[in-house]
Amino acid sequence: MGAFPLKHVYEAQQFDRRLLDTVFETADDMKRDMAEGGRRYGRSLANKIMASLFYEPSTRTRFSFEAAMMRLGGNLITTENAREFSSAAKGESLYDSTRIMNGYADIIVMRHHEAGSAEKAARVSTIPVINAGDGAGQHPTQALLDLYTIKDHFSEINNLKVAMVGDLKYGRTVRSLSYLLTKYSGIRIVFVSPPVCRMASDIKSYLDKEGIPWAEDTDLDNVLPQVDCVYMTRIQKERFIIPEDYDDAVGKYVLTPEKVRRMKPDAIIMHPLPRLDEIPRAVDDDPRAHYFEQAQNGLYIRMALLYLLLTAD
Amino acid sequence: MGAFPLKHVYEAQQFDRRLLDTVFETADDMKRDMAEGGRRYGRSLANKIMASLFYEPSTRTRFSFEAAMMRLGGNLITTENAREFSSAAKGESLYDSTRIMNGYADIIVMRHHEAGSAEKAARVSTIPVINAGDGAGQHPTQALLDLYTIKDHFSEINNLKVAMVGDLKYGRTVRSLSYLLTKYSGIRIVFVSPPVCRMASDIKSYLDKEGIPWAEDTDLDNVLPQVDCVYMTRIQKERFIIPEDYDDAVGKYVLTPEKVRRMKPDAIIMHPLPRLDEIPRAVDDDPRAHYFEQAQNGLYIRMALLYLLLTAD
Amino acid sequence: MGAFPLKHVYEAQQFDRRLLDTVFETADDMKRDMAEGGRRYGRSLANKIMASLFYEPSTRTRFSFEAAMMRLGGNLITTENAREFSSAAKGESLYDSTRIMNGYADIIVMRHHEAGSAEKAARVSTIPVINAGDGAGQHPTQALLDLYTIKDHFSEINNLKVAMVGDLKYGRTVRSLSYLLTKYSGIRIVFVSPPVCRMASDIKSYLDKEGIPWAEDTDLDNVLPQVDCVYMTRIQKERFIIPEDYDDAVGKYVLTPEKVRRMKPDAIIMHPLPRLDEIPRAVDDDPRAHYFEQAQNGLYIRMALLYLLLTAD
Repeated sequence: MGAFPLKHVYEAQQFDRRLLDTVFETADDMKRDMAEGGRRYGRSLANKIMASLFYEPSTRTRFSFEAAMMRLGGNLITTENAREFSSAAKGESLYDSTRIMNGYADIIVMRHHEAGSAEKAARVSTIPVINAGDGAGQHPTQALLDLYTIKDHFSEINNLKVAMVGDLKYGRTVRSLSYLLTKYSGIRIVFVSPPVCRMASDIKSYLDKEGIPWAEDTDLDNVLPQVDCVYMTRIQKERFIIPEDYDDAVGKYVLTPEKVRRMKPDAIIMHPLPRLDEIPRAVDDDPRAHYFEQAQNGLYIRMALLYLLLTAD
Repeated sequence: MGAFPLKHVYEAQQFDRRLLDTVFETADDMKRDMAEGGRRYGRSLANKIMASLFYEPSTRTRFSFEAAMMRLGGNLITTENAREFSSAAKGESLYDSTRIMNGYADIIVMRHHEAGSAEKAARVSTIPVINAGDGAGQHPTQALLDLYTIKDHFSEINNLKVAMVGDLKYGRTVRSLSYLLTKYSGIRIVFVSPPVCRMASDIKSYLDKEGIPWAEDTDLDNVLPQVDCVYMTRIQKERFIIPEDYDDAVGKYVLTPEKVRRMKPDAIIMHPLPRLDEIPRAVDDDPRAHYFEQAQNGLYIRMALLYLLLTAD
Repeated sequence: MGAFPLKHVYEAQQFDRRLLDTVFETADDMKRDMAEGGRRYGRSLANKIMASLFYEPSTRTRFSFEAAMMRLGGNLITTENAREFSSAAKGESLYDSTRIMNGYADIIVMRHHEAGSAEKAARVSTIPVINAGDGAGQHPTQALLDLYTIKDHFSEINNLKVAMVGDLKYGRTVRSLSYLLTKYSGIRIVFVSPPVCRMASDIKSYLDKEGIPWAEDTDLDNVLPQVDCVYMTRIQKERFIIPEDYDDAVGKYVLTPEKVRRMKPDAIIMHPLPRLDEIPRAVDDDPRAHYFEQAQNGLYIRMALLYLLLTAD
């Protein structure tokens, strides 16, 4: 598939349509190979070391990256205490930590509490850096696996109507997914949220600029029968100033089995997980529930990125 | 040795006599193979991933499982912070965590602070779950390694008199071992404890039902000359309301070298470790001291279980 | 290169000139092999397990050891919570922890908060123990990599003048390096520090005894043009009783680019890292800056020690 042009992955904006195709084709290939016992890729990163540098714990994301590295035969050094690197007592900069890790590992997967950290690290690193989430900033591999899950189900990401539901104002995932969907044609987006959690205007302006029609609604029931994909997110109680507003929101934005019955038969339900009450467990057995598959797709996407970045030259 | 009928290991009660034989024969085999450099089993779980999901830290147990996995050529993803999965802020259920891990790993080893958690996880998991201790509940691999240590020394677990000493009321290990000993014939048990720490009546009733003779004593000195196995446990100060009772207990239930001298020459001393003062270090060099070997046997038992569960079909 | 005579590595004093040569030659070999893709040593410790037993976290040191083990094809069990072994509730001794680990792993790398712990563990361990720093005590692999960095640059450690700068009173690294430099001929040392942080008299007496000329200075500017190696260390604010003394020290002992310009063209700048402000980032691109290379050399030294200790017989 030719050399992968990226050296690091720190934000969704690095990916154009061609790059997305490359990543998704590689992920497909990984998925196929895993089903066949890993014959082709199972030892492809033997002798490579991935450093998991987590400045804040995120077991789920870390496990997904680490499992991906091991499915390719690679090795790990890992910490959930990376803040200790830059502890008050010792005061090491992200710059120094990155330079030092360059001497130990072949690739860095970094989770940081401050937006922009991964890109900062990438700028000084001689080995690839993958952003595994930086504060309120980016979480590009989540955005890629979300899009891949849509592609995986519909084969083509074309002429789809996508509803994003819940806390759209602070949701990193729905922001990135909206951005990436502009790379495809015939996409329409409906933002469904309580008034206090509306999608921010920067994303809406971007969609306008890219010619992607979007609408807003506060009523999930209206929207469900018309869409191909319902992307649910957590509604966090602490965002609401008036407790009654929260209770109201919960009533409206919980995807109950009754609500699911009103969806198209071929539509899919997604969720970045972890969920709270917004999708009851009774929905899990519905064939439209794709959120656990979505988590599983994270493995293939991360295998693809690790492979592409570490075999680029 | 045929397919292993268990899919998960969450409690001692899952094991009948035939299953115990299978596990112990496999552990023997692992022990022999390790002594020969791991020629037969050293790569048998290559490409498999074990997830250590520890909701509370237990370095000793975790290391034993992880070393077992690596002695079989397997791979690890590991956390001692699994509680973060279900943190107040994110609120993920054990059910969701288990389903997600099913997409990343081939087997889950779980330590949890709540009794019954491992079985709950097993019920929804598509990959094997091993209970590495759940609260006041079960710790089945400890029970198996205890029994294996007796078998390893006496060849047959028959016609043995076993003393269990110390805090029998709250001791998970002595409860499970009592249960498993009923699978063998000619077993007699003596419970030796201060009155406040007596073995609970459910176990005694079970022994009666299974026809296993048992007795109680408060005086270790009486018992030592008659038994084949002395299973020591910690006496925890905080169980005693009156401080003098504790001081008294310590005097009576510490296995000093003088006391050891009164034991049968072929008897063995066991302890689940960690120990406090109930076995002084001066006893360690006595040939009857088997507690470090017992810890080592934990490796073979866990290798056996990992192997049996992961190669079952 | 013949059998390595050490079974454990717990202090710099274990190394005589011949042993240093062996370690450095092996490190050279490791470095060469890594550059060639690890053909010779890349699988040399397959089937071996290293236990990282960190009673206090030190991500940098741990990563260096763990990367070293993996570059040799070895496996890891690792904890940054080893204190839990000896928690108040459970009270396990270092002795018991070590004996138990002997059953699980092939080598122990131990970081401990109490001086002397590693040697204590080594005394009862049937498998090699490497000290990765014990409190105010020893950190022998740091001393070895410091010396190796000097050797690596100058080929021979002979007829060199070395300045040690900063907090010399509490600095474990400068104390050990001073000790090891006595094994070589033609060495001269200058200690450059504020009066409150002077090198302690035990080391000075030892240098006298070994016939190594040393001097003291408080002015870095005086010293810079004459020396071949400037070993910088952190100056910790909390050492100073009078705040103005600290401000003064910072002004005098910060190695600014202006100061670097006064150094010999072939001299080298070292630092054990992490640094605070004592070396500004503007110095990093100067060819004399060797501190990141020094960190990298830690990998080769640790590969060498792991290899030598695990293949000794």
